Amino acid sequence: MKYAAVLGFGTVGSGVVEVISGGSFQSKAGEDIAVKAVLDVRKFPDSPFADLITDDYQAIIEDKEISIVIETMGGITPAYEFTARALRAGKSVVTSNKELVAKKGAELIKTAREHGVSYLFEASVGGGIPIIRPLHNCLAANEIQEIMGILNGTTNYILTQMIQNGKSFGGALEDAQAKGYAERNPAADVEGHDTCRKIAILSALSYGKQIDSDAVPTEGITAVTLQDVAYAEKIGYVIKLIGRSKKSGGKVYARVSPLLLPKGHPLAGVEDVFNAILVRGSATGDVMFYGKGAGKLPTASAVVADCIDIVKHGPAGAPFWEDGGELTRDSGENVRFYLRIKADDVSRAENGVQAVFGKARVIGSGAGELAFLTPELSEEAFREAERRLEHLIGGENILGKLQVME
Amino acid sequence: MKYAAVLGFGTVGSGVVEVISGGSFQSKAGEDIAVKAVLDVRKFPDSPFADLITDDYQAIIEDKEISIVIETMGGITPAYEFTARALRAGKSVVTSNKELVAKKGAELIKTAREHGVSYLFEASVGGGIPIIRPLHNCLAANEIQEIMGILNGTTNYILTQMIQNGKSFGGALEDAQAKGYAERNPAADVEGHDTCRKIAILSALSYGKQIDSDAVPTEGITAVTLQDVAYAEKIGYVIKLIGRSKKSGGKVYARVSPLLLPKGHPLAGVEDVFNAILVRGSATGDVMFYGKGAGKLPTASAVVADCIDIVKHGPAGAPFWEDGGELTRDSGENVRFYLRIKADDVSRAENGVQAVFGKARVIGSGAGELAFLTPELSEEAFREAERRLEHLIGGENILGKLQVME
Repeated sequence: MKYAAVLGFGTVGSGVVEVISGGSFQSKAGEDIAVKAVLDVRKFPDSPFADLITDDYQAIIEDKEISIVIETMGGITPAYEFTARALRAGKSVVTSNKELVAKKGAELIKTAREHGVSYLFEASVGGGIPIIRPLHNCLAANEIQEIMGILNGTTNYILTQMIQNGKSFGGALEDAQAKGYAERNPAADVEGHDTCRKIAILSALSYGKQIDSDAVPTEGITAVTLQDVAYAEKIGYVIKLIGRSKKSGGKVYARVSPLLLPKGHPLAGVEDVFNAILVRGSATGDVMFYGKGAGKLPTASAVVADCIDIVKHGPAGAPFWEDGGELTRDSGENVRFYLRIKADDVSRAENGVQAVFGKARVIGSGAGELAFLTPELSEEAFREAERRLEHLIGGENILGKLQVME
Repeated sequence: MKYAAVLGFGTVGSGVVEVISGGSFQSKAGEDIAVKAVLDVRKFPDSPFADLITDDYQAIIEDKEISIVIETMGGITPAYEFTARALRAGKSVVTSNKELVAKKGAELIKTAREHGVSYLFEASVGGGIPIIRPLHNCLAANEIQEIMGILNGTTNYILTQMIQNGKSFGGALEDAQAKGYAERNPAADVEGHDTCRKIAILSALSYGKQIDSDAVPTEGITAVTLQDVAYAEKIGYVIKLIGRSKKSGGKVYARVSPLLLPKGHPLAGVEDVFNAILVRGSATGDVMFYGKGAGKLPTASAVVADCIDIVKHGPAGAPFWEDGGELTRDSGENVRFYLRIKADDVSRAENGVQAVFGKARVIGSGAGELAFLTPELSEEAFREAERRLEHLIGGENILGKLQVME
């Protein structure tokens, strides 16, 4: 019998306790698993697991029977310190904490290796979608070239409501909050930070080096309007919040932003709270993983799968990366943008746009606005053209701007 | 250094030799891997790997340095015997041979276990899509309830050509052959046998017991016409060849057939040679894996990932199942069918259809035909109604029949 302690009895933590207590792992792991303690400062007198709750972490650390610590607290403090202490005490740690993995992954993996234990985090990206282990193991014979994903269910739900039901951003957000898909303070989701942490983890795993997630250009969906959605629809595109990264000249290009995707793109049909991650491997070509990216049981099942892995394999072959990844702002690609600008005089605005961009493609105009696609330009040429446009019409009159992916 | 022998220098085998020779596995596997011999009765004097080619399998078996045998021959004979000999000689075997795994998987897995080695087959389903290992490992904390997949790229390409470009089945098949997607004898693909082998493997892995793939009801796409495609389109459906299986009353319900899928279904948007596998887990809900299901490099990379797994983990945690799975014809579901019948007198045919099925939904008529959807019926009630329809209009006048999935 292997014993685990769970840190944090919130949604994911209580799900983990339920899944472990309700299952038998003898046949899958070769040995059964039981939860021996649950760390939480709160009391849960009505829970069937009330007896397991403790606020004494030192006792967990000192308990030689506990060989796995499951951290589902979230945040950096005190999860970082608690994780490091567990690893140094020779206990493997399994986590769903994307913030901590994105920030301190390389260091905690190193600590785990030094102490002959594992630090596993399948649940930190994609909830119940198996993605960390397939990326690490199954694609071992590949060089990962690019990752592109819908990594946040809340924002995907909001965008789907805007696209399919014509709800405004605010209305769709309220709806998501009412359904429990969005938190009362939705900033981490709608401003793209959650997506940013996840693409940082996937990038570190795929390219082998930690990147500074705070330095990844990150733009959420709060500025996306129904006009943008309608113009995109008119030319056969949908707007999705995409976390993307690729290798570019020995460095990593990473970015989080809403993009225009053509309707035939594999990620374009991913709707509601579903997540999907498209991985381009040197040998496999494009592979996509799809499923619900959050939720108590899916996330708990990913945590428990990591525990089973530890019981079966020990620390052999755990995912790892090192510190020192460098970011670049240069994707090395030509880019095309959708722009929506203020245009009291449409034909004059159109002349201005053509003067700046050359062959821009006008999508439509109305209500004092003009929407168009720029031609493909190098990033530098685009920035230069954008500056000229700002100079011509005033930066405040650029109402919407989204990159187009093909 | 670990040494491998490759059996069969065909498309997949030569891809494996290229990937292994071109890569370094020290960092991923902890030890490097090299190909020491390639078994083939043919000679390849112009190949850079000509020196490795041998027709002496006994020498490979006796070579103590060779610890991994990679079987990419396909078919049952002599692959079955060669695999069993390698396992009994204490060598792990990695294969892309779906026919052999579907037929003899339980036995070969048992032989491997008895000799402390592995029998791995990631490449047998889904080419480069990681599916066997995620199903086995990452979903370990789940009970798999149902699997549904587009498992054959050739037939999906043909159906996509029929749907998008209005090509007939024959024309689309010729096109697929010209592009190298279909073999000159396309029977294994278009008659559904390839899909059947793959769903048999996924079912055995998911439900724990070998099933008799020859006994799985299997229907290919040769009878699908452009009329069927057009009627499906009219009501918002597409036709896809689906391998499906689920647990039903302690037994396994499995079936291969073309189905009508609503356009919003995750599998409906999977086009051309792409494959996708939708897995319903008790905790994760629906998870989908998507990518190119065939091709030299994707398949080779899956084979090499298995080799890396063996070097890293040894036989611990290899996928397994036992003999003795039982099939059932009863899905325990209510079903709805699309039917296209001969109808020289449309209103008379419609009266007949309503008399037999009650609330049938007429889709359209023309050219002496009538197409309709039956109401939802138990399988037994449907079969009974079908018999009455055959009695009324003659079985030969039922021109098209496809189950509808929601």
